Amino acid sequence: MNSPVRVVTCLLYAFITFCGVNAEGDDFKPIPPKAGSWVGPTTGEVWPNPQIRFRQNSFFVLQVDQFEFKLNNAAASSDIVNESVVRFKDRMFPGQAQRAREARQTRFRFQPPLNGRESTEFSYNVGQLDTIHVILESACGNCEKYPYMGMNETYEIVLNPDSSEEQFVVSSSVWGLLRGLESISQMVYISPENNYSYQINVTRVIDFPRFPHRGFMLDTARHYLSMNTILQTLDLMEMNKLNVLHWHIVDTESFPYQSTTFPDLSAKGAYDPYTHVYSQEDVRLIIESARVRGIRVMVEFDTPGHTQSWEKGQPGLLTECYDPTTERPNGRYGPMDPTKNEVFEFLTELYQEISEVFPEEYIHIGGDEVSTNCWRSNPFVNDFMNQWNITGDYKRLESYFIETLLVIVDKLPRNNIPVVWQEVFDNGDNISPETVVQVWKNWGIGWRNRMQAITTAGQPAILSAPYYLNYIKYGSDWTCIWAEFVNSINLIPRAWPRASAVAERLWSSRDTRNISEASSRLQEHECRMLGRGYPVSPVVGAGFCSVKWN
Amino acid sequence: MNSPVRVVTCLLYAFITFCGVNAEGDDFKPIPPKAGSWVGPTTGEVWPNPQIRFRQNSFFVLQVDQFEFKLNNAAASSDIVNESVVRFKDRMFPGQAQRAREARQTRFRFQPPLNGRESTEFSYNVGQLDTIHVILESACGNCEKYPYMGMNETYEIVLNPDSSEEQFVVSSSVWGLLRGLESISQMVYISPENNYSYQINVTRVIDFPRFPHRGFMLDTARHYLSMNTILQTLDLMEMNKLNVLHWHIVDTESFPYQSTTFPDLSAKGAYDPYTHVYSQEDVRLIIESARVRGIRVMVEFDTPGHTQSWEKGQPGLLTECYDPTTERPNGRYGPMDPTKNEVFEFLTELYQEISEVFPEEYIHIGGDEVSTNCWRSNPFVNDFMNQWNITGDYKRLESYFIETLLVIVDKLPRNNIPVVWQEVFDNGDNISPETVVQVWKNWGIGWRNRMQAITTAGQPAILSAPYYLNYIKYGSDWTCIWAEFVNSINLIPRAWPRASAVAERLWSSRDTRNISEASSRLQEHECRMLGRGYPVSPVVGAGFCSVKWN
Repeated sequence: MNSPVRVVTCLLYAFITFCGVNAEGDDFKPIPPKAGSWVGPTTGEVWPNPQIRFRQNSFFVLQVDQFEFKLNNAAASSDIVNESVVRFKDRMFPGQAQRAREARQTRFRFQPPLNGRESTEFSYNVGQLDTIHVILESACGNCEKYPYMGMNETYEIVLNPDSSEEQFVVSSSVWGLLRGLESISQMVYISPENNYSYQINVTRVIDFPRFPHRGFMLDTARHYLSMNTILQTLDLMEMNKLNVLHWHIVDTESFPYQSTTFPDLSAKGAYDPYTHVYSQEDVRLIIESARVRGIRVMVEFDTPGHTQSWEKGQPGLLTECYDPTTERPNGRYGPMDPTKNEVFEFLTELYQEISEVFPEEYIHIGGDEVSTNCWRSNPFVNDFMNQWNITGDYKRLESYFIETLLVIVDKLPRNNIPVVWQEVFDNGDNISPETVVQVWKNWGIGWRNRMQAITTAGQPAILSAPYYLNYIKYGSDWTCIWAEFVNSINLIPRAWPRASAVAERLWSSRDTRNISEASSRLQEHECRMLGRGYPVSPVVGAGFCSVKWN
Repeated sequence: MNSPVRVVTCLLYAFITFCGVNAEGDDFKPIPPKAGSWVGPTTGEVWPNPQIRFRQNSFFVLQVDQFEFKLNNAAASSDIVNESVVRFKDRMFPGQAQRAREARQTRFRFQPPLNGRESTEFSYNVGQLDTIHVILESACGNCEKYPYMGMNETYEIVLNPDSSEEQFVVSSSVWGLLRGLESISQMVYISPENNYSYQINVTRVIDFPRFPHRGFMLDTARHYLSMNTILQTLDLMEMNKLNVLHWHIVDTESFPYQSTTFPDLSAKGAYDPYTHVYSQEDVRLIIESARVRGIRVMVEFDTPGHTQSWEKGQPGLLTECYDPTTERPNGRYGPMDPTKNEVFEFLTELYQEISEVFPEEYIHIGGDEVSTNCWRSNPFVNDFMNQWNITGDYKRLESYFIETLLVIVDKLPRNNIPVVWQEVFDNGDNISPETVVQVWKNWGIGWRNRMQAITTAGQPAILSAPYYLNYIKYGSDWTCIWAEFVNSINLIPRAWPRASAVAERLWSSRDTRNISEASSRLQEHECRMLGRGYPVSPVVGAGFCSVKWN
């Protein structure tokens, strides 16, 4: 563990509070006082903000046809770097038509601050930049096949006109090179003078993340998300330097994961067994796409609650609820039944498959929101509890389930590390010191105190509570959705670029706090993502991107 | 005027409160207790709900290749009907692949109520339906070229197996036929037995709107909306029987309307004078697309406030604000300057163009949110007010502006009728009895009392206050955006099918209030719109449409 605290974003809401500001009328409808966009974009700035960055006004000119990344021997031996430089070169040079329009962005109400949009009066052309060296300072390009918790993402960029050797991005890991190449792709902009040529400023960047775990959660159970949506999400995560896809893959509503060991789980539990499932091939494609972007895929199979859809393909897993008057099963089901050995035998087999399919070390086992009503109603559950001397203590029964599951995960041959929702910690379950606790509730003692309690107890923690993007927040409160109201239609416009704001809190230094500077930078970043083909929404108020869409 | 009260939806928020319901846990995150979709769809139901409808369980079968609409002489002489039957036949028969998937929709947690999803046990096939007669009961198919306030939208559908003459849709106007054809297109569904054939139930419908003015407002000034987005919006409006596009075409931020009389307004006031404008050809295409869908295009050129972008192309329109200490212009501008004759001469010419370009009788002249600070600062304005004996009464100056503009509109050769925002009425302006007042504020005395005050004073009114769709509301409060955070990317998923809920309040009888019945019907309608190619969002909670998207 590199850090006692890791922060994950599930999904956020900064920069939304522009609404209501700038009102000159007597009412809440914002009436900005001047014509034009509310916020003008920066040119060639990086999102999230690098830790250390010096940028001169003078600039290199780039020619699409002549530019190349030149890999040193170690970098050239890395399949990830070889594949990625093609992607990043594409991102560096938006199309010609796009360029001409981009160049006409001249009318903005609020000019970005000088550090974002330098006066070009004193800038000058230092020459053409044809090569950026990509230097992996490591003996071995392919030693690290998969990204992992605590991987090195530090990189340095030097674009210095004094010597032809001094235009490079360097890192001691492929993951750092990926981050650095993304930053370079964002630093290229179109000349505001001639509206045509690509430029990049004389720059030096030293950059590294504030937190090693920077996650984005997708819920593919409440609504099925298409492969295209998930792959687009991985692209956007890379563009925002997020590095963990938390894949909440199944839930009560549906079971879209096609298990090889238990194919009935999706055949009977998916919304549609043919079109609304993730095949093994789909999963492999997602993991591979994530891998070459330096993104870990941490899967979650939530138990013992949130599992109604499991019962369809694996009858007998869930607790039968009893009618109190007839004392017979009422046809409904509760959480998984902790009294049955078959349940744990099933979970052992399933987790063996999960551990083989997903290369990621961390596995999320869930553990949130377990309702005990059904357990209370079931005579066999109560008998079991009497035998084990925990009569009436249903929280202890929940702990029994989780602790047994943790033993199963502990015995996996790949030494997986479990991640649990905060309830597991709150219940006082017996968990190993490496078990990661994810905080999602913001009420009760609040997330700050909860985080403190968890880390004081020596557990690693992931914070999600303040980062629920499925909430759209304009005013002073928020409320709920996960994917209950989000599907392939609206996921990307709803999540981005609001998730970009979270990504910057997670990557940049804690003193990156200047809202007006960030707004201009985010406006550029929004249009950049749009120009790259992703349907992200406007977040900094009235305005436009030169990119034509739809 | 057919009705003293007309209702417009700007944009709404029903069916959003599902969130938080069905929680079995101790917290707000919804945990529905069963596997599957929260709400199952109906089959072949109509949205918005018809006024009177009898539906038997028995059904006709339809063959795509053999089915035809047969027009009577009057209908055949209408260009609108001829063009529209092609569109509606497309809508009746979704594609083959789509059908096969649609048919697999078998697992739904909550079965729709019987009136929506009849048991098929007692249903039987009454034969093949090859012809539906389209009967226009009018001497003249092309008498009504453009839709208008108070047009007749009543229609009747009879699908009776007893005689081959008794399968028809009839109306005394083309507008009613359009509404009836849309209903028919929604009544066709895929057989739940064989998962293949198209069916339509033996049905009788008598239908008419509750309110004659059923609007949807687009703001194309805060963010430019692409032609495609506007044309898609017209399609969706037709599918939901909305009949007025309120086009808030320009505002402080930008002036995208390409005027022939004053081309500089967009050349200098648009976000981009080439790509972010509506040419005369664009406007004609929108009006024509709206016309053949029975939709009026009511344009709004908001003055005297909300006009900063106008000054760029027409310098001298706005009031110069003065610095109180230097007593000189401070470089900022307020609302239009009512002291200058040139301003009203300009508006006279502009409104002559507007009246010629837009065939709609009603023109929205704005009048909302006028800030008086700049007027207060300007010595010429104060001199003018002294001359007219209204010293210090800036509300009266605002009234002077509006009343002068109303005279300009009154003199237009096409006898246009003005629509104004509620401030004009609240200020006690002298307005003609036909002037329509649009209520958008929900505070102060509240919209109910405000509507009562306006109609008691004898003015027609449009209600928008409860229907702001740009607010996303999950909990107990809401707050603001218009198009400040909405553009071509997210307009359709954000507005639909939430606007469908408003559309039903405006079309259906006031006792259409059964939420669970409506939820199932809305689920079908959501998937129907998606299947027709429109990116509408999920609104009734976890679930799926069989349509594959993205």
